[in-house]
Amino acid sequence: MFEISTVASMELKDISGLVKKYVGESDIGNGIVLVYTPHTTAGITINENADPSVKSDMIKFLSEMVPDKSYFRHMEGNSSSHILSSLISPSQSFILDNGRLILGTWQGIFFCEFDGPRSRKVYVKILSEDQ
Amino acid sequence: MFEISTVASMELKDISGLVKKYVGESDIGNGIVLVYTPHTTAGITINENADPSVKSDMIKFLSEMVPDKSYFRHMEGNSSSHILSSLISPSQSFILDNGRLILGTWQGIFFCEFDGPRSRKVYVKILSEDQ
Amino acid sequence: MFEISTVASMELKDISGLVKKYVGESDIGNGIVLVYTPHTTAGITINENADPSVKSDMIKFLSEMVPDKSYFRHMEGNSSSHILSSLISPSQSFILDNGRLILGTWQGIFFCEFDGPRSRKVYVKILSEDQ
Repeated sequence: MFEISTVASMELKDISGLVKKYVGESDIGNGIVLVYTPHTTAGITINENADPSVKSDMIKFLSEMVPDKSYFRHMEGNSSSHILSSLISPSQSFILDNGRLILGTWQGIFFCEFDGPRSRKVYVKILSEDQ
Repeated sequence: MFEISTVASMELKDISGLVKKYVGESDIGNGIVLVYTPHTTAGITINENADPSVKSDMIKFLSEMVPDKSYFRHMEGNSSSHILSSLISPSQSFILDNGRLILGTWQGIFFCEFDGPRSRKVYVKILSEDQ
Repeated sequence: MFEISTVASMELKDISGLVKKYVGESDIGNGIVLVYTPHTTAGITINENADPSVKSDMIKFLSEMVPDKSYFRHMEGNSSSHILSSLISPSQSFILDNGRLILGTWQGIFFCEFDGPRSRKVYVKILSEDQ
């Protein structure tokens, strides 16, 4: 598990390096890796981390797609953050191959903050196929 | 595998207890757990199960976000249910740690009914890292 | 890993047969299967593959739900494709039971092209529970 801090109400934070470091230190060569966040107003996604405009376009669009609604009754007033969490999902799975995550040229792993800024947790579980 | 019954056309049904019972009976300590539903108008999600308004806000919003469209051609007339199934996903993965699922304080596991009421199936698969 | 070609800008291509063939050739009986695509403008989903109208309804709806926006700044001009990739997810997980994927009667596995036509890669990883 590692902890991160977010700085905005909505934010896509690149955690590729943190996940790769965690996987590298495990000494496991081949298997499946699950990256999981235990929060209900956040998520994990995989997308382009080359041009930062992809992140900002996505944040602007998602906040428009799931706006605050006058009929929302959840007391904390952050139902749109909960909905985005379910649409993006709180976890993503990866293939570990010879000690490296299989990621496309443009793929990075992002923690998605939908109700920040906050301190958040990310769990990484590696299941090895080498016994 | 266990079966559940839904009572509404759209419903988020908390299955955390059923999943935890299934996992507890397995006697597996550590690994990855996959919760999978074999239906094309349903899904599995993880979200807050403390305030029930989160569920009702989500259902109202999702039904507005993916409404019935006059151009839909699928004969059964439930294309919006199929689309919601793909947006939410028919499965979620979890980390099993010392016999317990890692879930955040507010996280519950929900079966998402998008075309009920119906009788539905949920499969749970546990892959152990302890050999 | 296998490669596929898509023929349209947006397309749902049934890859159930390719995944089942890959799994069958592995001689693994029980476990979890991860189907993963390493692209940031594509995804993997599970939905009905009986009536082809489900596919066409979904494509038309998703392209309307995530349209091109004048405020998008990503240089390549395909931010909506990236957003759809995060909403659908680049992977799906399956249960392998006695050599067969658990799939519902109507469930098929689809590669989702959101920025085609292109040549695309799909990885399949099987983690066995039989040691």
